[in-house]
Amino acid sequence: MDSPTDFPLTATVRVRTYELDSFAHVNNAEYLRYVEEARSEYLKQVGLSFHDFARYGVQLVIVEAHLFYHYPARYGDEIEIRGRFRDVKSASLLIDYRLIEKTTGKLLATVTTKGAFIDPATGKPTRAPDAFRKAFIASPSLPTSSFNDS
Amino acid sequence: MDSPTDFPLTATVRVRTYELDSFAHVNNAEYLRYVEEARSEYLKQVGLSFHDFARYGVQLVIVEAHLFYHYPARYGDEIEIRGRFRDVKSASLLIDYRLIEKTTGKLLATVTTKGAFIDPATGKPTRAPDAFRKAFIASPSLPTSSFNDS
Amino acid sequence: MDSPTDFPLTATVRVRTYELDSFAHVNNAEYLRYVEEARSEYLKQVGLSFHDFARYGVQLVIVEAHLFYHYPARYGDEIEIRGRFRDVKSASLLIDYRLIEKTTGKLLATVTTKGAFIDPATGKPTRAPDAFRKAFIASPSLPTSSFNDS
Amino acid sequence: MDSPTDFPLTATVRVRTYELDSFAHVNNAEYLRYVEEARSEYLKQVGLSFHDFARYGVQLVIVEAHLFYHYPARYGDEIEIRGRFRDVKSASLLIDYRLIEKTTGKLLATVTTKGAFIDPATGKPTRAPDAFRKAFIASPSLPTSSFNDS
Repeated sequence: MDSPTDFPLTATVRVRTYELDSFAHVNNAEYLRYVEEARSEYLKQVGLSFHDFARYGVQLVIVEAHLFYHYPARYGDEIEIRGRFRDVKSASLLIDYRLIEKTTGKLLATVTTKGAFIDPATGKPTRAPDAFRKAFIASPSLPTSSFNDS
Repeated sequence: MDSPTDFPLTATVRVRTYELDSFAHVNNAEYLRYVEEARSEYLKQVGLSFHDFARYGVQLVIVEAHLFYHYPARYGDEIEIRGRFRDVKSASLLIDYRLIEKTTGKLLATVTTKGAFIDPATGKPTRAPDAFRKAFIASPSLPTSSFNDS
Repeated sequence: MDSPTDFPLTATVRVRTYELDSFAHVNNAEYLRYVEEARSEYLKQVGLSFHDFARYGVQLVIVEAHLFYHYPARYGDEIEIRGRFRDVKSASLLIDYRLIEKTTGKLLATVTTKGAFIDPATGKPTRAPDAFRKAFIASPSLPTSSFNDS
Repeated sequence: MDSPTDFPLTATVRVRTYELDSFAHVNNAEYLRYVEEARSEYLKQVGLSFHDFARYGVQLVIVEAHLFYHYPARYGDEIEIRGRFRDVKSASLLIDYRLIEKTTGKLLATVTTKGAFIDPATGKPTRAPDAFRKAFIASPSLPTSSFNDS
């Protein structure tokens, strides 16, 4: 069982009418959009901004995404997206997300994305800038042992 | 190395302008939409239609999705989505998709979804109708041994 | 110049990352989605719900939409969507929306939609139920004179 | 009654599953996306490309959109989007679109967008490059008289 401190990052989205599919459930793809939105929030919460990416000449691209759908979301649901950075490596990191319906506390979905740092000029993997790694360390959710990376 | 016959199902989507994100790449979530579109095509290709779901009183819902992004898609790309049914069980099946840019043959992404049959009245898992299982068997991609299911 | 009381209905949306186009502006089509979301809010604010549509056997479909884009919205903008019902007829009504960036007060867009009541069984126009018309009257933005309709 | 030659530009989109709303109709906002896709096609059809915008340092932004919904589109519909340039001015132009379901010939929607040329550095209106105006003239749909503009 996860304790709340295991997922210290947080963001909230509210389901909008047009995100429903023809079964009145939130379309599967929207969850990937919700965690994109959450990811932006999380980066801000650890002190990073879009401008930092330009300044250091890196991009963080998603190379893998794994989604587990537990319970359908519906119109008007407030979804809390709790998150944590994990398995930070020199050029990549994992982010775990738990999407929880706020009123009932029901777990709607769990998602993990793997991000890779690339040099936008070449499209090749590149080392994450120290400022980024320090920001990820500052996140309370990050076990320090995970920095024993390749 | 996959042979073409390993992925006998096929569908095509063309990237539209509004599917690009602010880096001019196709947004990650669109791939999940592309495979949803492909999945509808595949069901038709094995002789099933949306009406069959209503007739038999079942829904096929996605309970897991796994995406691996290999190369960014861009505006105007024709994407061939080759697919196969796999690991058909009494109440679930896997579908594998390979998204390939048609002009260059470049592999853009690989996706696997796990679908579960549910009873829409209760939301609970239910056994796939025989007509569906027969249709999946008719698909040349389906190893018959995978029917030794639970 | 509009006074605030001219647009008594209100809803708020926050721009999400994935709504940006390749110029980092909110895509034109998103505004039509934002006002759909606002419209749902407005109906709730005058005491109507999705269930009322089913109960009375009517649908409210959009038959016209007119959008004027004044200033681009960007990631993270909080957009207040002020609205009013107008020109309520026996089977149709107009809704005006003003999309305003909350921090600066900048007017981003103005939108008007024309909605028509239809019978979902036939797809034909039908008279709005009295309960709906009363709800629209209860809205402070509705000049009573506009009920001298056909 | 329009003759076919009145709308000489053409593009096609096929309705995808995930574009349906909870009534199994194509969501209103998708039409604005379809015409965005068509507009890109039309520009190519008169010899312009995205690269030309960068080369001449202009952007063509949509400042108005007017949509009339006549008949709902459904999953799998092939929609032909016939178009024409109209009312070309020094810094703006109108584009008319007629969305037609190909199998039945049914008119689904008519749309008009007003585009304005802007200088991306300042966001201010700017004069359309001659190359663009020549390309619009080359379009058979453009009455030459419409060039007696401001």
